[in-house]
Amino acid sequence: MKYHVKDKNLRVRGRKRIEWAQNRMPVLDSIRKDFLRKKPLKDVRVSCCLHVTTETAVLMLVLKDAGAKVALCASNPLSTQDDVAASLVFDYGISVFAIKGENRKIYYQHIASALEIKPNVTMDDGADLVSTIHKKSAANRIKRENLPWGSTEETTTGVIRLKALERENKLLYPVIAVNDAYTKHLFDNRYGTGQSTIDGILRATNKLICGINFVVCGYGWCGRGVAMRAKGMGANVIVCETDPLRALEALMDGYRVMPLKEAVRIGDIFITVTGDTSVIRTEHFKLMKDKAIVANSGHFNVEIDLEGLNKISTAKKEVKEMVTEYILKTAKKSKRIYVLAQGRLVNLSCAEGHPAEVMDLSFANQALSCLYIKENYTRLEHKVYKIPDDIDNNIARLKLKTMGIKIDTLTKEQKKYLESWQLGT
Amino acid sequence: MKYHVKDKNLRVRGRKRIEWAQNRMPVLDSIRKDFLRKKPLKDVRVSCCLHVTTETAVLMLVLKDAGAKVALCASNPLSTQDDVAASLVFDYGISVFAIKGENRKIYYQHIASALEIKPNVTMDDGADLVSTIHKKSAANRIKRENLPWGSTEETTTGVIRLKALERENKLLYPVIAVNDAYTKHLFDNRYGTGQSTIDGILRATNKLICGINFVVCGYGWCGRGVAMRAKGMGANVIVCETDPLRALEALMDGYRVMPLKEAVRIGDIFITVTGDTSVIRTEHFKLMKDKAIVANSGHFNVEIDLEGLNKISTAKKEVKEMVTEYILKTAKKSKRIYVLAQGRLVNLSCAEGHPAEVMDLSFANQALSCLYIKENYTRLEHKVYKIPDDIDNNIARLKLKTMGIKIDTLTKEQKKYLESWQLGT
Amino acid sequence: MKYHVKDKNLRVRGRKRIEWAQNRMPVLDSIRKDFLRKKPLKDVRVSCCLHVTTETAVLMLVLKDAGAKVALCASNPLSTQDDVAASLVFDYGISVFAIKGENRKIYYQHIASALEIKPNVTMDDGADLVSTIHKKSAANRIKRENLPWGSTEETTTGVIRLKALERENKLLYPVIAVNDAYTKHLFDNRYGTGQSTIDGILRATNKLICGINFVVCGYGWCGRGVAMRAKGMGANVIVCETDPLRALEALMDGYRVMPLKEAVRIGDIFITVTGDTSVIRTEHFKLMKDKAIVANSGHFNVEIDLEGLNKISTAKKEVKEMVTEYILKTAKKSKRIYVLAQGRLVNLSCAEGHPAEVMDLSFANQALSCLYIKENYTRLEHKVYKIPDDIDNNIARLKLKTMGIKIDTLTKEQKKYLESWQLGT
Amino acid sequence: MKYHVKDKNLRVRGRKRIEWAQNRMPVLDSIRKDFLRKKPLKDVRVSCCLHVTTETAVLMLVLKDAGAKVALCASNPLSTQDDVAASLVFDYGISVFAIKGENRKIYYQHIASALEIKPNVTMDDGADLVSTIHKKSAANRIKRENLPWGSTEETTTGVIRLKALERENKLLYPVIAVNDAYTKHLFDNRYGTGQSTIDGILRATNKLICGINFVVCGYGWCGRGVAMRAKGMGANVIVCETDPLRALEALMDGYRVMPLKEAVRIGDIFITVTGDTSVIRTEHFKLMKDKAIVANSGHFNVEIDLEGLNKISTAKKEVKEMVTEYILKTAKKSKRIYVLAQGRLVNLSCAEGHPAEVMDLSFANQALSCLYIKENYTRLEHKVYKIPDDIDNNIARLKLKTMGIKIDTLTKEQKKYLESWQLGT
Repeated sequence: MKYHVKDKNLRVRGRKRIEWAQNRMPVLDSIRKDFLRKKPLKDVRVSCCLHVTTETAVLMLVLKDAGAKVALCASNPLSTQDDVAASLVFDYGISVFAIKGENRKIYYQHIASALEIKPNVTMDDGADLVSTIHKKSAANRIKRENLPWGSTEETTTGVIRLKALERENKLLYPVIAVNDAYTKHLFDNRYGTGQSTIDGILRATNKLICGINFVVCGYGWCGRGVAMRAKGMGANVIVCETDPLRALEALMDGYRVMPLKEAVRIGDIFITVTGDTSVIRTEHFKLMKDKAIVANSGHFNVEIDLEGLNKISTAKKEVKEMVTEYILKTAKKSKRIYVLAQGRLVNLSCAEGHPAEVMDLSFANQALSCLYIKENYTRLEHKVYKIPDDIDNNIARLKLKTMGIKIDTLTKEQKKYLESWQLGT
Repeated sequence: MKYHVKDKNLRVRGRKRIEWAQNRMPVLDSIRKDFLRKKPLKDVRVSCCLHVTTETAVLMLVLKDAGAKVALCASNPLSTQDDVAASLVFDYGISVFAIKGENRKIYYQHIASALEIKPNVTMDDGADLVSTIHKKSAANRIKRENLPWGSTEETTTGVIRLKALERENKLLYPVIAVNDAYTKHLFDNRYGTGQSTIDGILRATNKLICGINFVVCGYGWCGRGVAMRAKGMGANVIVCETDPLRALEALMDGYRVMPLKEAVRIGDIFITVTGDTSVIRTEHFKLMKDKAIVANSGHFNVEIDLEGLNKISTAKKEVKEMVTEYILKTAKKSKRIYVLAQGRLVNLSCAEGHPAEVMDLSFANQALSCLYIKENYTRLEHKVYKIPDDIDNNIARLKLKTMGIKIDTLTKEQKKYLESWQLGT
Repeated sequence: MKYHVKDKNLRVRGRKRIEWAQNRMPVLDSIRKDFLRKKPLKDVRVSCCLHVTTETAVLMLVLKDAGAKVALCASNPLSTQDDVAASLVFDYGISVFAIKGENRKIYYQHIASALEIKPNVTMDDGADLVSTIHKKSAANRIKRENLPWGSTEETTTGVIRLKALERENKLLYPVIAVNDAYTKHLFDNRYGTGQSTIDGILRATNKLICGINFVVCGYGWCGRGVAMRAKGMGANVIVCETDPLRALEALMDGYRVMPLKEAVRIGDIFITVTGDTSVIRTEHFKLMKDKAIVANSGHFNVEIDLEGLNKISTAKKEVKEMVTEYILKTAKKSKRIYVLAQGRLVNLSCAEGHPAEVMDLSFANQALSCLYIKENYTRLEHKVYKIPDDIDNNIARLKLKTMGIKIDTLTKEQKKYLESWQLGT
Repeated sequence: MKYHVKDKNLRVRGRKRIEWAQNRMPVLDSIRKDFLRKKPLKDVRVSCCLHVTTETAVLMLVLKDAGAKVALCASNPLSTQDDVAASLVFDYGISVFAIKGENRKIYYQHIASALEIKPNVTMDDGADLVSTIHKKSAANRIKRENLPWGSTEETTTGVIRLKALERENKLLYPVIAVNDAYTKHLFDNRYGTGQSTIDGILRATNKLICGINFVVCGYGWCGRGVAMRAKGMGANVIVCETDPLRALEALMDGYRVMPLKEAVRIGDIFITVTGDTSVIRTEHFKLMKDKAIVANSGHFNVEIDLEGLNKISTAKKEVKEMVTEYILKTAKKSKRIYVLAQGRLVNLSCAEGHPAEVMDLSFANQALSCLYIKENYTRLEHKVYKIPDDIDNNIARLKLKTMGIKIDTLTKEQKKYLESWQLGT
């Protein structure tokens, strides 16, 4: 078995932590028990490019127990938990290619390694596997019959990229947009990113959140989550948006809304969650207050223009783990800007990513989508598909059950009423 | 000009209140100014079945200034503001058929009267105009060439009814689902219903909201709004749902979730916002605490089964305007249940309905959809259409502008990034 | 029996509403039952100057059932509920001197009438009875032996005035500061004023609260309550303060804090809750935005300088009940400022004042303090006393019981631990 | 110079972190600059027993810059940050006696070592220095003339213990209750404990907070803070109290209130913040759900009865750093209870304690109280004193200034109004 991880000795800590996560992912666990019995993915080869965390480890074990052959690489160079990688390899016998802090070159080598098993299914978080396969050189190398049956995609950002491919008629196989499951984006993006972003900031800075101006760039599901939790911690939240509907919603939700160029003059902490590039850039850094803190919780590290910041800085040093201080000299005096985790995902780099309870939902979608691809790929076109509603609803139902929550059911009369049109005022 | 309103003398108060609303509906006002110049609805006949409130009056004036011939009837027997009806007729020369508290028979006579102008466009709030036209007897009477060009529909409930018609291939002309505009359901249903429901309860009961168990049946957009505001007033909110996804969302939003049969044992105030029938029924009333308060903020008065309540009560009286006390005798002792506004919309019956600022958005959608029907009806099929995105976005943009809020715009680089798929980690 | 009320015919509506309140004041009701049996205030003469509302009516009935002889006048010319006054006189035989909208002269005549019974106890809301008695002319008229045994005072403002009297050694008899009971100011001032202020604004304006800048002047208990509820309704709250500790607390609570002169440039609604004079004055009105709304929920109508506003206005009219529009002409264009309830208490003038559930606590303190004065006045000095802790705790305990809430009790070991100092880390 | 710390090599990391904290404590920094010039504590000997954190380090540097001779020991065996201790000794030349995880014996030896300098002032966090000095053996050893001039006390718990001493007339020198400063307990206890408790739980468990039942035992300032932040993170909060006033307040604040014996049946996370002993004990553990998490954020580790838990457990192991799993076997099946940080302060043991911005206020009070003792001790009795209001207000004013916040000032007219009693309605 091939692998590339940092240190075998970390496996003990990793295993404990994986078990801790497993403990808190009851939906995935009930799926695992079912898969273990039926082996529905027997001999299916699955390449995964995901954040290598305890929760991902639990998903890998589900796939393995279903009979699949799995290879895993990191979807982000800074988010790998080396102890988890070690335990997956040495305790559970799963191929992992991931080392925290790996450089760009190693990062892409790891992706290539994960694809060496010639996957039937690719499982992506940001579409890096799919786009590697779609790159000219790669696509040429892979014969038609060796293309995967399908892929799953975890993130908003990835789905946007894949839909661009689809629009250009270049998509070579079907994709299930796991991100579009309600049980994924409504929960993971909002409650997961919300909590874990605050967590990451606290671990990196231990800064008092209440009483400060907290600027959230982007008011999609992730932005809504971050804004909600920052407010819950007592911050005065400012939202910056380019979409008028979302801007209006943020305003009605009680936040201040203004262009980023105004927000930078008063903000204490800035979080980007847009999925777009160069959101905070030179023109903004120049106007920031002394000691402003800047972090990203979107997808890639392109949301903050660090190259631009570097150019206008006179000095730069790490003042604390994961905290880089940039010194900017202006006419009168110098000021400091603190960037967390080099602009990479602050929740994964500075904290532990989404809580297991959230990933329980997202990864239940992944596991069931993987099975769905196997059972349906011959019928699917080369398109980006929304996850089937049945899967979505069943996961929600299962989650409620594991939390001990009961809900109402429609009476016959009520069902009929909803379907009729003749009953009036 | 035909009309049927309560009392001409109320016109002075009505006019003042219409002007007060107009003052606070800047989006609609900017549309009105534009329409006044261009007269784009010249000689178009529009029959409207809407809650007869100050905000509706402002919409009527927009249609009139656009050149339309308008007839208005009530979409709910209890929500009519008689002073507004009087002012519309005697100050502004608009046909109105609406009297607060009208009985069922008069209610339908008023609908018939509003249809006498042979409308080109019907504007509905709950689909009563459309379903009247679709009823056998009526449909037979109307010749093919006299059918309206199209209709607009304001509510979730109405859209559900119309889609049922569409599914059965019985829809006789196209409908624009104004409710589906983001600037409608995200704002009106949530922020409007949220605030005005609390307002209605306060005016009817003056009850302290903080510290009580506040039960919200239904966690759609209206339910989310009501729950959010009840929590904002300090209540401990319990959500009852039949949909597992919504139930899970309510739970994650910090509310308690349980079946209604459990909630009735501890609830102090109950609000139905489901759009369905018999949500609170005999089996529930029997388990309620003494002095429980029950109200509806959904659509029709069928959400609370008052007939059932009546049967198990030993006495019933109005203890306060809009508050009916039912006495239930049980084995040991008697208990009281208070029903607000006879189960009709509590926000319109006990308070003044949505604030003008919210209706500004909803009715801007109505005005522009009416124009859209005129300009496009020949191309439209007999279907229920979502409102065009352009209209939606423009209204949001206009609203932000009138509130003095500026937002960011995407840079060229950012637009390009969002459309590409090759840029990776 | 003497009285002066508006209209006997209003008694039916008044009685219904008093019963509705009584229903919701279980603590006071349990005290009433006890008093009815023991008649502890037999032949005690009590003059009350309170807002004449349904809840005050319930308190009057408690005093009457205790055997007292009661006379009641209004503590605010605009807060009287005429139907309640009528019912108290004609259904319950209690002397009332209060008419909504009475002018200054009548207001003071009513105070004089209420004092004609030569009270043993005065019950004040803003210290008007006490200060009338202390005015030179009056004090001279009242012989030493005819002075009351003591007084109770309901409000922060009144207590401040009475402590000023005490400091100058001019207080002629003891006062129990009911306001200082935790069960009064923590609940009435915060939860009561919070909810009822929002209620008053909604009834007067029906304005959408979410998304607007809501300015609260003063961050005492009332201000905290108003800010909390405005935030709960979705507003963006700005707090103006003169006390650095309170300003810092408001900031940490997530509000914006700035001087009023800055806040007036951006505020949509302004509420004064300071207990001080001329908080919003000419210099502020001049800087306000068009359509700003201004209201007072503090104590007297001096918080907003209406005289000053009048001077800089070119026109003034009532555009809606309780809403006065002032037109200010500036160099370029004219703007409108809306004042609610002529600057008097917005919660009492535009809505119904505190909910009965809150007044249940406050007035339980009043009833028990009145008894306390009777039983202890010979031992009391001419000072302002905090209400005894026992009364306070018992009321809290009683309230919890009536709400069906149980709490823990300290174990013996825990009590001992709290009293010891030798147990360490 | 004497010292006892873990590892000199940790000094580099410690120094960076101390500088990071210093950066964020502007109030203390402005005091330090003043002290550095005036040397007001020249040759004063100060023994401090405080949590050895970065913020405490900043306070030590202020005392040193003021000219004092300082010795520092830990006020809790688990809260010491070894890197900070190392840096204080080797970078700044301050005597420190503290090692994270030190046992009970070493803990008290460290206290003894810190007292060897024969302090003029003792600075306590939980009264351990003062009670050591007051213990018979110790008190006998110290001659009258060698007793400190006075002490400062940081915590509610310490103040309670000291007041017990005062009541028994056993206090040997005056104490300034720093805890009673508004700028301490309103901010540190509420906003500090609130945020850092959540932070500690997240770091230890990474558990999703939203949607769970979060039980807070105690609703003092700390409990209010924890409840507020848990709610802000989306939890459904349950408060347990023994004081009826606080219980009622918690209820009105929107929380559920119930006895702990009921709460244990449904709670997912339990936090004790009472300052009392054996709050969660055997009878409670027995009723908890599987996987319940228990932690303490009060003062000492006595709030959770771990001895009792141990007795009813069949196994116990550390499943993750700072997380101990106890297995309880019941009739049917076994269940797990997780205890964080062995019941010691979860915010200091699992996270980094209060943010620097909060300690900035608390420690400004410490620094100024130390000076106050030096200047006033000859006039002070052997009592527990509230901190002077001037110090309190100035700190608030200074903090606002450093945050760039301006506030209003009273006009002459307003001051006069507040002092008068003759102006009425």
